[in-house]
Amino acid sequence: MELACLDLEGVLVPEIWINVADRTGIPELRRTTRDEPNYDTLMRYRMDILDAHGLTLRDIQAVIASMGPLQGAAEFLAWLREGYQVIILSDTFYEFATPLMAQLGYPTLWCHNLHTDGEGRISGYTLRMPDSKAAAVRAFQSQNFRCIAMGDSYNDTAMLSQADAGVLFRPPANVVDDFPQFPVVTNYAQAQQAFTSASTR
Amino acid sequence: MELACLDLEGVLVPEIWINVADRTGIPELRRTTRDEPNYDTLMRYRMDILDAHGLTLRDIQAVIASMGPLQGAAEFLAWLREGYQVIILSDTFYEFATPLMAQLGYPTLWCHNLHTDGEGRISGYTLRMPDSKAAAVRAFQSQNFRCIAMGDSYNDTAMLSQADAGVLFRPPANVVDDFPQFPVVTNYAQAQQAFTSASTR
Repeated sequence: MELACLDLEGVLVPEIWINVADRTGIPELRRTTRDEPNYDTLMRYRMDILDAHGLTLRDIQAVIASMGPLQGAAEFLAWLREGYQVIILSDTFYEFATPLMAQLGYPTLWCHNLHTDGEGRISGYTLRMPDSKAAAVRAFQSQNFRCIAMGDSYNDTAMLSQADAGVLFRPPANVVDDFPQFPVVTNYAQAQQAFTSASTR
Repeated sequence: MELACLDLEGVLVPEIWINVADRTGIPELRRTTRDEPNYDTLMRYRMDILDAHGLTLRDIQAVIASMGPLQGAAEFLAWLREGYQVIILSDTFYEFATPLMAQLGYPTLWCHNLHTDGEGRISGYTLRMPDSKAAAVRAFQSQNFRCIAMGDSYNDTAMLSQADAGVLFRPPANVVDDFPQFPVVTNYAQAQQAFTSASTR
């Protein structure tokens, strides 16, 4: 029995923080773990910026809802769900992803949580567990599922390595160079072919 | 973070074998594990009967597709998916459930597999793993999910006991008697209340 594990940002929906930065006109929010490797420091920095601009979770959710999924993502996911059980493994937060999940027909999503204070400001976060994507794949394998995983970036490579088959979707050049073992696809038609090829059925 | 684990038959869709028996006019297919406790013996018996009537998997799938979900099930599941990540844990087979999953918007389903021979006859089956429902809940808990489970019969009680909260949906009287620790609901409005009560949010 086979399970499809998909990354969310860059695979089905736009990169959330980068698009929030662009749509709110706050370029400081483009900062990523490439610029600030300490994730907690980066998140505190982001929360301080949102606070300084008086932006609440509800404001950010409205921005995210307006992004929509990537073009063709809803159709690809619908195709995938007809043939595979799908679980999306993401490092985003439920509170961010929910407006986009509605637009994708509520696939099952495993990610993290944000906290808000009494005024709706983002005040903190809880990561579900360390190395959550690869750990989830291991848990699925312990339940006798064969896992086919697809992601786009460094934070997906542990998941792809743990999975029984891994696929890179529109990865940056350095990820392709560092992980030559994974097939690379650049559109959803190729992604369908990659899943079909990786399947043992 | 909370996960909702739902049984399928009797909770979201009709009992599949019983309805197949009624709709095909083959009363012998009503036989259950209550009549034949050895599951493999029961399955061989069922496959022999289907063969004797010349019924292929495709025939049975057409019968199952015509059943539809239980009245109100699609709306309940849509409500649940807005607030919880949902995984359906069932002892049915993917090949049986798929026509009904399409009618429920393809929720994630973990169940078992049937085999067919070259002529489309059901020739065997693979159970994903022993005690699969409770094992799945344990795997979800190992990923730091709090699990709320709902089912209707004896084969759900291990899942309900393993879960952080369990709910019985329209159970038979003997299950209510033997498992008085679980709240009992008899319709989807009550099921919504039970999930809301069991949630820590």
